[in-house]
Amino acid sequence: MEASGRIETALEAAMRRAEIDEAPPKLAAAMRYAVFPGGFRVRPRIALAVAQACGDDQPGLTDAAAAAIELLHCASLVHDDLPCFDDAEIRRGRPSVHSVFGEPVALLAGDALIVLAFETLAQAGIQMPARLPQLTLTIARSVGAPHGIAAGQAWESEPDPPPERYRCAKTGALFVAATTVGALASGADPMPWRRLGHRLGEAYQVADDLLDAVGDAYDCDKPVGRDAALGRPNAVTQLGVAGAVGRLETLISEALESIPPCDGEKELRDLVRMQALRLAPKKLFNRVA
Amino acid sequence: MEASGRIETALEAAMRRAEIDEAPPKLAAAMRYAVFPGGFRVRPRIALAVAQACGDDQPGLTDAAAAAIELLHCASLVHDDLPCFDDAEIRRGRPSVHSVFGEPVALLAGDALIVLAFETLAQAGIQMPARLPQLTLTIARSVGAPHGIAAGQAWESEPDPPPERYRCAKTGALFVAATTVGALASGADPMPWRRLGHRLGEAYQVADDLLDAVGDAYDCDKPVGRDAALGRPNAVTQLGVAGAVGRLETLISEALESIPPCDGEKELRDLVRMQALRLAPKKLFNRVA
Repeated sequence: MEASGRIETALEAAMRRAEIDEAPPKLAAAMRYAVFPGGFRVRPRIALAVAQACGDDQPGLTDAAAAAIELLHCASLVHDDLPCFDDAEIRRGRPSVHSVFGEPVALLAGDALIVLAFETLAQAGIQMPARLPQLTLTIARSVGAPHGIAAGQAWESEPDPPPERYRCAKTGALFVAATTVGALASGADPMPWRRLGHRLGEAYQVADDLLDAVGDAYDCDKPVGRDAALGRPNAVTQLGVAGAVGRLETLISEALESIPPCDGEKELRDLVRMQALRLAPKKLFNRVA
Repeated sequence: MEASGRIETALEAAMRRAEIDEAPPKLAAAMRYAVFPGGFRVRPRIALAVAQACGDDQPGLTDAAAAAIELLHCASLVHDDLPCFDDAEIRRGRPSVHSVFGEPVALLAGDALIVLAFETLAQAGIQMPARLPQLTLTIARSVGAPHGIAAGQAWESEPDPPPERYRCAKTGALFVAATTVGALASGADPMPWRRLGHRLGEAYQVADDLLDAVGDAYDCDKPVGRDAALGRPNAVTQLGVAGAVGRLETLISEALESIPPCDGEKELRDLVRMQALRLAPKKLFNRVA
């Protein structure tokens, strides 16, 4: 099965565990709404591509780790959109979870998706328990404190967030987790894959900053100009538009260079290039493509 | 080390992982504030008592599982107190987390505590990976959907929540997890310990309902009369005060009867009896003691 099919199948299997028989209907519906239909599923795609480069000898474990990462990403979006954060009414072109289901159910859906991620991983870990501790630790650290998404978000409540630390935690950490769990699920050394995750994560953040600064509503899935309005660290504020575009180009080059010789190297490079094209704001397309 | 010392040491070790070097200061402070000083730590005490009854051959794993359960309990209190749920300004006799740190940091502290619970368990699981999948699954199911705390809370957003299912999910599930992880961490069969968890969980909920209906601010750590005001299922509404007191007595008896012959049986019975005394609202003390 190709990557997209594997990812959707794994997410569907996870979601069904949360929906069986006695689930509170609104919570189950909100969880499904938060996860389906997805975006490009870039993080699980990266996880699968690295796993394939490492032999992918336990595809069930790979799929579960990839799904766990996507569930955590979706959970972070649900909480990020809540009134006390971005207060976003729109996400991925349609009403955000709390706009549809109300704030209490949205908050609980985010909580339950976080839990479902670890449950999904543990379920697959029954077949290969020796790999479960490091997989769980890697994923947990990328979403918790002090280095994961929760920490990244929390820097927004500090008076003077360190830009690098903020960016790494809020966006980079889950990309690093995506590359390294691909290796870990296959029993391979994760270290050679960290740099790829770092570069992709920063590229994603710089592209997001560019979209925030110069994108239009069609390009991106959230309102434009919010970082400036909220005084958040932003690559465009720091480097200017041209500087940020240059940084994005450098990051994509470094991501490509970081890929070690491996099976599926070409597919992985293609995925990174495709991601680069997808990331670049359409207005700046010619510069980055 | 006695139970209380083991629990506080394990929680302190977990918390330090979230606080090291580069943590956002408010998030780290809010997480600590949510966990220390604790209440009676009844759930981890139960986990340790059952583990000791089962031989406790991996005390590090037992302590981590007990700490994970307490971290998840604390996370649920933080989110439960938020304005979109109970809007509680006071918890355990002092300002609630969001009253002190603001809503965004409180929400993130809850998220990060959920993640820290699974990280703590996985860290201890390195020494005994074979036990990690079932431990993680047991704990995840007790806090997620469809049968855990998030589901229990979500029933409050449904027009006609089934009382039994609501109560089991919101309170009972984590008590069942507490007894069963005690067995699982020690490599024992968890099944003989489920009934004890169920009975203790329901006893706790009935006692909480009594406090909500007839307690006073000194007895309990939340405002009185909220269940009636919010139309939530409540044992006193269903059974009346005398009926609820009778139910509490029955549940404690059944909990005591359910304890299988084992090492540490006396300590476990003492813990249940102590818990019964602690649970009973002071006004009704003579009835239940």
